[in-house]
Amino acid sequence: MTYCVAIKLNAGLVFLSDSRTNAGLDQISTFRKMIVYEKPGDRFMTLLSAGNLSISQSVREILQTEQLREFEDAEPITIWNAKSMFDAARVLGQAVRHVYERDAEALQQAGVEFNVSLIFGGQIRGEGMRLFQVYSAGNFIEATPETQYFQVGESKYGKPVLDRVITPETPLDEAAKCALVSMDSTLKSNLSVGLPLDLVVYEANALKSNKIVAIDTDNPYFRMLHNSWGQKLREVFDSLEDPVWDDAKTENPLKAQGRIAPLKKLSNPNEKLI
Amino acid sequence: MTYCVAIKLNAGLVFLSDSRTNAGLDQISTFRKMIVYEKPGDRFMTLLSAGNLSISQSVREILQTEQLREFEDAEPITIWNAKSMFDAARVLGQAVRHVYERDAEALQQAGVEFNVSLIFGGQIRGEGMRLFQVYSAGNFIEATPETQYFQVGESKYGKPVLDRVITPETPLDEAAKCALVSMDSTLKSNLSVGLPLDLVVYEANALKSNKIVAIDTDNPYFRMLHNSWGQKLREVFDSLEDPVWDDAKTENPLKAQGRIAPLKKLSNPNEKLI
Repeated sequence: MTYCVAIKLNAGLVFLSDSRTNAGLDQISTFRKMIVYEKPGDRFMTLLSAGNLSISQSVREILQTEQLREFEDAEPITIWNAKSMFDAARVLGQAVRHVYERDAEALQQAGVEFNVSLIFGGQIRGEGMRLFQVYSAGNFIEATPETQYFQVGESKYGKPVLDRVITPETPLDEAAKCALVSMDSTLKSNLSVGLPLDLVVYEANALKSNKIVAIDTDNPYFRMLHNSWGQKLREVFDSLEDPVWDDAKTENPLKAQGRIAPLKKLSNPNEKLI
Repeated sequence: MTYCVAIKLNAGLVFLSDSRTNAGLDQISTFRKMIVYEKPGDRFMTLLSAGNLSISQSVREILQTEQLREFEDAEPITIWNAKSMFDAARVLGQAVRHVYERDAEALQQAGVEFNVSLIFGGQIRGEGMRLFQVYSAGNFIEATPETQYFQVGESKYGKPVLDRVITPETPLDEAAKCALVSMDSTLKSNLSVGLPLDLVVYEANALKSNKIVAIDTDNPYFRMLHNSWGQKLREVFDSLEDPVWDDAKTENPLKAQGRIAPLKKLSNPNEKLI
């Protein structure tokens, strides 16, 4: 499994991926799930992948040279000359379909599903930033102000903090922090997600990024985040009052017959006015 | 979908379930997923269910009268006379198998998987508390000091806080609070889980419980928890420093060719000594 998340903000884009790959539980390896395509001043794109590693590696390999032809005499579109991120995403979708044509039947015969999930985002000169999620069929959806982030892989553990923090106005570094906390929660609860992490922070209209970093166990910021978040979360948890049971002596005639007894309201006497 | 969690502690047991059932997205109903079986002074048992509602309702219906016969002349074992929770769990497993025999083939013909997940725990006079997770095949596993809680249904969103808080020594009310926070995170991120909640707190060796409560939107404690947790989580998040990028001017020759660039370590200058 794996966990990747990408967030689109007014201020820019944040991409974060782990690097653990497992086939079963005793074959665990480290493979980077992130790749950056950059032509400074012209385009900056980042691809994150989850799913079957042989498929996503093949997609990445052929994407570099993949050509999309609209009609016979048209100039072929590649990710390096596409005039929009939408076209670049179409090239990626076609690369997925090429791998499908090549491998899906043999995979199916071996009982392996053709399974790949991709997040692809960035900016090409002349248009705004865009962020896409590309599915196994090569089709894709785009992030909007209402749905600002995409996750692939083991996404649920890390979703609550994204839902609580991310808005279009969130500053870039805060969003990077949020992505790292989301990853930390996932690492805590799922063995199939592991360090090192790859993080890219892209500022709107920069058309390049120097904020590309590999984060390993010895990274002081991630260690601080991991330790502080766990500890402070615990402090917040402890600061919330335990439930107080009123009316605890009342007997409930329904219960003995095996029914649910919505008998008493759990209430905190200090909160009665709410 | 649904979310149920049960926790076994030295001090007792905590059971919590939501009550949303959905078949697709436009057929959403409220069904309680919890049922309590109590003979005060003799036994106290709670059953939580997830999966196909028709199956779990059938299991609950026949469990009341289900009889397990070890051999021809043996006294039949029911949940009301079982001498151990292990035997009671076997009766429950047999009830699941009876529903399977009755319904699985017809369900399969309709393309519906035979899918039910149950959590069953409590205490019978003469032995300690026990907690089981029962699967669709009627087989089951038991909680241990290392694995103190079981979740069924939409379990991932609410897992991180359980992993951070629960130990065998956690007091009962704190564990109830933790289960409610876990549920709150799940409610926040998943539409298919909804109020009202049913909560049972059982004190070790009581062989009965009066702490059985239905929690609706107007419950002051849950509202306080929901608001405070969200707000304080946000405060903790804000209190963590954003990442600081050093060396942000360095150009990275690998990046342009589409490789990952583990060039710079993200670091917080205040944390250098860690």
